[in-house]
This record gives sequence, C-alpha cells and structure tokens, in this order.
Amino acid sequence: MSSGGEQFELVRVEDGQGWKKAGGTMLYESDHVQVEDVQCITPTRPDASTSWTIVHRKAAVAIAPMLEDGRFVLIHQERIPVHRTLWEFPAGQIDVPANEVTHDIVIRTAITELREETGGELLPGGKLRPLGHFFPSQGFTQEHVYLFLARPVHLPGAASPQHDERFGEMKFVTAAELRLMIARNEITTALTLALYAKLAALGLLAD
Amino acid sequence: MSSGGEQFELVRVEDGQGWKKAGGTMLYESDHVQVEDVQCITPTRPDASTSWTIVHRKAAVAIAPMLEDGRFVLIHQERIPVHRTLWEFPAGQIDVPANEVTHDIVIRTAITELREETGGELLPGGKLRPLGHFFPSQGFTQEHVYLFLARPVHLPGAASPQHDERFGEMKFVTAAELRLMIARNEITTALTLALYAKLAALGLLAD
Repeated sequence: MSSGGEQFELVRVEDGQGWKKAGGTMLYESDHVQVEDVQCITPTRPDASTSWTIVHRKAAVAIAPMLEDGRFVLIHQERIPVHRTLWEFPAGQIDVPANEVTHDIVIRTAITELREETGGELLPGGKLRPLGHFFPSQGFTQEHVYLFLARPVHLPGAASPQHDERFGEMKFVTAAELRLMIARNEITTALTLALYAKLAALGLLAD
Repeated sequence: MSSGGEQFELVRVEDGQGWKKAGGTMLYESDHVQVEDVQCITPTRPDASTSWTIVHRKAAVAIAPMLEDGRFVLIHQERIPVHRTLWEFPAGQIDVPANEVTHDIVIRTAITELREETGGELLPGGKLRPLGHFFPSQGFTQEHVYLFLARPVHLPGAASPQHDERFGEMKFVTAAELRLMIARNEITTALTLALYAKLAALGLLAD
C-alpha cells in the first residue's frame, strides 16, 4: 500500500477568508443525511441575511484503477436513487465526519474500496496517485470526493460487495473505449467524469 | 435561439426494466429538497428488502459558453454549502418537477442561465449543442444535470444575477488554460469537470 508519497489537500468546510456561519437550524437528521438551514456571512454578503438549505453528507473517495496493460476497470452498479445500473469507477464513503478526515483515512478507504468493489490490489511498487477532489453539487451539499489513480492494479480475487451494495459485472476498457463511452453518454456519474477530466487534463490517458 | 436541431435524452426516474418502487416514506420536505426512505425492487433485488434514503432535487442545466475566439467563459460563484468561491461554468436549476421537464424547458433554461449568469447570448447561427447529462451523486440523489456547449457566444451586456446568487467576476480561458486549471485542482465542481470530460471525449477542445 503506497500513496506514492504525494500529498493532497484535505477539504475543510469552516469559517475563514470572509466566510462565517452566523446561524443554523437542523431540519432533519439521520445517519445518512442531515438537512440544515444556515445563515452565512460570505465575502460579498456581510449581513448574513440570506438563509440557505444545505444537505450534509460524508466525504467519499473515487478511484480510477489501471491494470498493467493500461486498461481501466469499470464496475456496473445498481443505483437506487436514479433507478439505473451504471458503469462507474469504484467509489465509497469515508466513515468519519467529513471535517475529521485525515490523509491516512482517505488512503485507507481508497485501498479498501478498490479491494471490495473490484477485488483489485496495487501491485508491488504500485501507486495511489492523488488527483485532487471535487464537489458533486456545490449549491446543495458540502459533499466532496477525493480522487485517485491506482496503477498498476491486479485482480487476484473476486469483488466482495458489502451487504448494501450489489455488483453485477466489471468491464476492462482502454482509454479510447472509455472516451467513446463518455462521448456516447454511456458514462453518466460525476465521479467517473471527474476522474476522466483529471486524467485528460494531466495527460494520463494514452490513446 | 437555436438548439442546433440535436436531440438529447430526457432523464426519467420511474419504474421499468427490472426497477420498481415498492414503497416510500417522506421524511422531510421543503421547496428545495425532499428526503425519502424508499423500498425498491431492482434487477438483482427482487425482494425489495433494502431501504434506501434518497434526497430529491430539481434537475439542472450546465453550459460551457465558447466565445468566437474559442475561449470559454467561467464565472466566479460563492457557494455557501462549501464556504468557497469557485470557478464554474454557468448552471442553474430547472423550475419544474424533474420528471416533467421537456426538451423546450431544458433549452429555455439553458438560454436563460447563460444570459443571467454571463450576460451572454448565442450569436446568429450559434448553437446550443447537447452533450448528454450526468448524475452528481447517484447513490444519494436523483438530481441530474443536462449539459450543453453554447457557441459562439457574445457578451453584449453585464450579468444579471438573481436575488439569491452573487457573481463576482468572469474569466475567459483558452482550452489550454482550462486544462491547466483542472490539472491544478483550481476547478472542483462536478458540472465543470463533467463538461470538460464531454468536450475532451468529443474532440471539441482545440489546444
């Protein structure tokens, strides 16, 4: 297990640099989501007159696993909120409060999700390269996702889905095939598109 | 106002093809979000034994505006849930229930958001090219975002933000500059990364 020695920015949502939470009322709270009405001072709104409904959720990781031959691993996953089975890169939530996440916890979660969702592991000398983070829906939720490229990965065992996840199939695609799936709208999840954008921008996609 | 004559798939979340909502309890409901506990039959879960917490939200549009000189328009927007001011492509919610959205409503919202957030309009002969859609957080919410490339766009007037939105600045970037911002983690919103992934996959980024 190696993170390649590269650091990444831990996301914190807190006061500072013109931002200050002036008040908040919890409207709904469960283990999965919390809905809060907040009043917030922003760099251009020093009066905090505007209320905003925020949905809080745990942070997550998403990993683009690359095999030794350069192909990427996609998983086919049933997603109940959208009533669809979607091709995605492996991903999962980080089981501590989002603002208490540490580098070690992020790396450990990424390694665990890779193994649980694909059965895959980094080969000796393999690296988990941080590719930054993204906000899935920044007007709505503080949710954020840490992104990684894992390479090279081998798949010695079968995937071991958790009780609340079902995995049908895996698919191994070249960069060119991945590109075609995106062009054809066959890949529609933010985490997979965000990883593709990062890989493309960083010149990590050999066609 | 032209959509270029191209069609796009309207997203519907409904029963069909192995999916059936077997029950649901609304846990929290406001104009902005609805939190629902659902029981769902899926292709691999015919017993519907698993409950899932879903947050419902309106659909949205996101537009990559390209000027005549090939540069893209980014806006700098305060995002209260994440306590950050972020560089993004223009975007906005569609003000009808997500499953009642029509092609015309999507196109009209995209044109309106482009004008309100950048002051921009399509030049005569300009096109709003559909680039598909994406799901921001498919394990959590049915929210979906329709993606467009608008080109060529001109900016005759100033942006006219709505009462609940604040826009600081705009930035005009070449494809190469956009790429660098993504590589440096200076662009962190799913909608902007998803549009970049689509543009890259479709070969619409001239470097």
